[in-house]
Amino acid sequence: MIINLKTYPQATGEKAVLLAQTCERVSKQYDVPIVVAPQIPDVYRVSKAVEIPVFSQHMDPGAPGRFTGHTLGETLVEAGCSGTLLNHSENRMVLADIEAAVAKARNLNLYTVVCTNNPAVSVAAATLNPDAVAVEPPELIGTGISVSQAQPEIISGTVEMIRRVNKDVVILCGAGIGTGDDVAAAIKLGAQGVLLASAVAKSDKPEDVLADLVSPLKK
Amino acid sequence: MIINLKTYPQATGEKAVLLAQTCERVSKQYDVPIVVAPQIPDVYRVSKAVEIPVFSQHMDPGAPGRFTGHTLGETLVEAGCSGTLLNHSENRMVLADIEAAVAKARNLNLYTVVCTNNPAVSVAAATLNPDAVAVEPPELIGTGISVSQAQPEIISGTVEMIRRVNKDVVILCGAGIGTGDDVAAAIKLGAQGVLLASAVAKSDKPEDVLADLVSPLKK
Amino acid sequence: MIINLKTYPQATGEKAVLLAQTCERVSKQYDVPIVVAPQIPDVYRVSKAVEIPVFSQHMDPGAPGRFTGHTLGETLVEAGCSGTLLNHSENRMVLADIEAAVAKARNLNLYTVVCTNNPAVSVAAATLNPDAVAVEPPELIGTGISVSQAQPEIISGTVEMIRRVNKDVVILCGAGIGTGDDVAAAIKLGAQGVLLASAVAKSDKPEDVLADLVSPLKK
Amino acid sequence: MIINLKTYPQATGEKAVLLAQTCERVSKQYDVPIVVAPQIPDVYRVSKAVEIPVFSQHMDPGAPGRFTGHTLGETLVEAGCSGTLLNHSENRMVLADIEAAVAKARNLNLYTVVCTNNPAVSVAAATLNPDAVAVEPPELIGTGISVSQAQPEIISGTVEMIRRVNKDVVILCGAGIGTGDDVAAAIKLGAQGVLLASAVAKSDKPEDVLADLVSPLKK
Repeated sequence: MIINLKTYPQATGEKAVLLAQTCERVSKQYDVPIVVAPQIPDVYRVSKAVEIPVFSQHMDPGAPGRFTGHTLGETLVEAGCSGTLLNHSENRMVLADIEAAVAKARNLNLYTVVCTNNPAVSVAAATLNPDAVAVEPPELIGTGISVSQAQPEIISGTVEMIRRVNKDVVILCGAGIGTGDDVAAAIKLGAQGVLLASAVAKSDKPEDVLADLVSPLKK
Repeated sequence: MIINLKTYPQATGEKAVLLAQTCERVSKQYDVPIVVAPQIPDVYRVSKAVEIPVFSQHMDPGAPGRFTGHTLGETLVEAGCSGTLLNHSENRMVLADIEAAVAKARNLNLYTVVCTNNPAVSVAAATLNPDAVAVEPPELIGTGISVSQAQPEIISGTVEMIRRVNKDVVILCGAGIGTGDDVAAAIKLGAQGVLLASAVAKSDKPEDVLADLVSPLKK
Repeated sequence: MIINLKTYPQATGEKAVLLAQTCERVSKQYDVPIVVAPQIPDVYRVSKAVEIPVFSQHMDPGAPGRFTGHTLGETLVEAGCSGTLLNHSENRMVLADIEAAVAKARNLNLYTVVCTNNPAVSVAAATLNPDAVAVEPPELIGTGISVSQAQPEIISGTVEMIRRVNKDVVILCGAGIGTGDDVAAAIKLGAQGVLLASAVAKSDKPEDVLADLVSPLKK
Repeated sequence: MIINLKTYPQATGEKAVLLAQTCERVSKQYDVPIVVAPQIPDVYRVSKAVEIPVFSQHMDPGAPGRFTGHTLGETLVEAGCSGTLLNHSENRMVLADIEAAVAKARNLNLYTVVCTNNPAVSVAAATLNPDAVAVEPPELIGTGISVSQAQPEIISGTVEMIRRVNKDVVILCGAGIGTGDDVAAAIKLGAQGVLLASAVAKSDKPEDVLADLVSPLKK
């Protein structure tokens, strides 16, 4: 389970640290792996504060040297990240840059999650051999209408199509997931995990929401 | 004087902190204001380690909430930044986004430096009322050939043209600046400061280079 | 008056030619200059069919040679265009590219209309010395709610602010303009012309709509 | 064989028509299919002048309606195009847009050629089921150093990797191809055709160059 903090004010700066610590507590209590993805300026302070994996929300494919303002993999490693989202629908990437970023992240031992918008794009992403692909229909992101309940065929179709070209890539889904039932439905459809944001980041009681979300994954 | 650390390996992570501390020592010793602009994942750790101003290399204009992977002003403030570069030639921005970012930074009390590539673009940028405009001919960036010596008319022309529309904006120049003589030439041409990168970030002896650079600005 | 045909199906291919001929008839009958801006693949066939000015909807700043897929000024001239829109809100450009495109168009005797989203951006655009600036609040584009009636202060503010830095640039406005009254209101607020799209391109009776629109401009 | 006219001045406007007619003559004389890809403002006049297939250099994925300045498939069809290049290295596209453009072109019966920069990206593109994939190492484009002679493993590797996921897609290669020997080498390595530009578009004697190029393909 990956919690994307996006740019929510409730999940920025010191509040990102507190939310990451909440994720860590729930992760330990229920023995379910939780990853947190804070904003890029926050990755260092969050990774210093928790032991659960911290992912960046984006990584550029460039090489050290120039590229003012770009977010390089080398710098993310130094900042304590162990992985990164790529190609999120709010930050889409050129195909060749996704390939270059995945290849570079692999050399740096950064875990890569390529976000995609439909089954066909998911298959293309899967052939680049990232660690995970996360399919998220953009029209459901942030709506509270769960992809696993509203568009189950997106998940099952993606799983089936990806497995024809890549047996190993982890398949995640996201968009509108907010409850343990949504997670259970996703797992039943063949997803191996979920990517979510607002349900946790915007909640007044994130610990309760997280506890509900991880319940179907509890060992 | 603004030191852009770009993505140089010699200026990443802990090394960015060390270089910022060097800038701070020289700034205090010579009583010359020096600003350091580390990579975005490094802004928090650098701003915790030094008292000189820390600028981001980029800021997106979006609002808190969505915008996964974007770098918002609110988050930069929380991370300890007091300003940001915008529209660097390695990270150029759409015109409406520059305007929106400058307006938003103003509300957040973040100092804005809009980078530009020639006098005409500098004038357009100056009308947006950022705190500073930094003209940098892209063909000289990283070359070691100083704009103030090789293309002095760029600086004097920019100063003259900007002053017709904006009396107050600080005018900086950059590209290829590496010595105190380059800085002195820039100041003589009407620039009020310089923006530089490789001369310091790639040097084996950044403290000596900085001491030479600030010598014409010493009070 | 500039009629932007966007990518409306009613204004594509042969239908773009017919609509341009309608514009031409109205232009001659009422002695009001009308410019038509068809889609880029249509500029040649439209410019062969009418004598009124044909503008491109976009122009890239690149030089002849490489740049596969780009729309160069030289090619627009060969295709019979006499001008181009730049930086439309549906096709926003990097600041330095707007400047380069305006400068290049000037050398090619192409008339330039830089589209902008608010008064501050309009002033920045005006300092680049295009032939015209067209302010269009994006939130009103295509709504049928006229900028000149719903947000008159956008137009009057833009005119006032632009005139401080540029006495000569033609000032247009757009967004939601659909009737002669909207045009009259715009002219009264200080605009020298209008840029519009859906009211004409989507109409069943474009000739009647155009006749109404030009009535306040009739000599 | 696809001849990309890029934005060469020797292949713009009326000269694009003349060059397309030359391609048509050689195509008929040697009974080898040749496709010509002129600049977007030139597609209509070229398609009116020749019977060989005319491809656009780019197509955007948007739908009819708004999207000022975009190049829609519907408009390309009306302009006489029978196909389009996508994602050329000089005009790279976001992954989701490539998928959307390929799907839309399929509905419009437009032939799609997705350009790619290496074998891994070629495989990803092939899973989107375009009609063809054209691998072109960017560092060789326009150099006159033929990919088929300088980097034969790029072609053979691409062919082998693509065939694991897609049996049907046509595999082309490009970059630096200028002679019949280069074409013969490409075919021998498993390519089914070539994409080239400068060798023909910049030649003083394009008919002779074309005759040499097609000689290995002659039936």
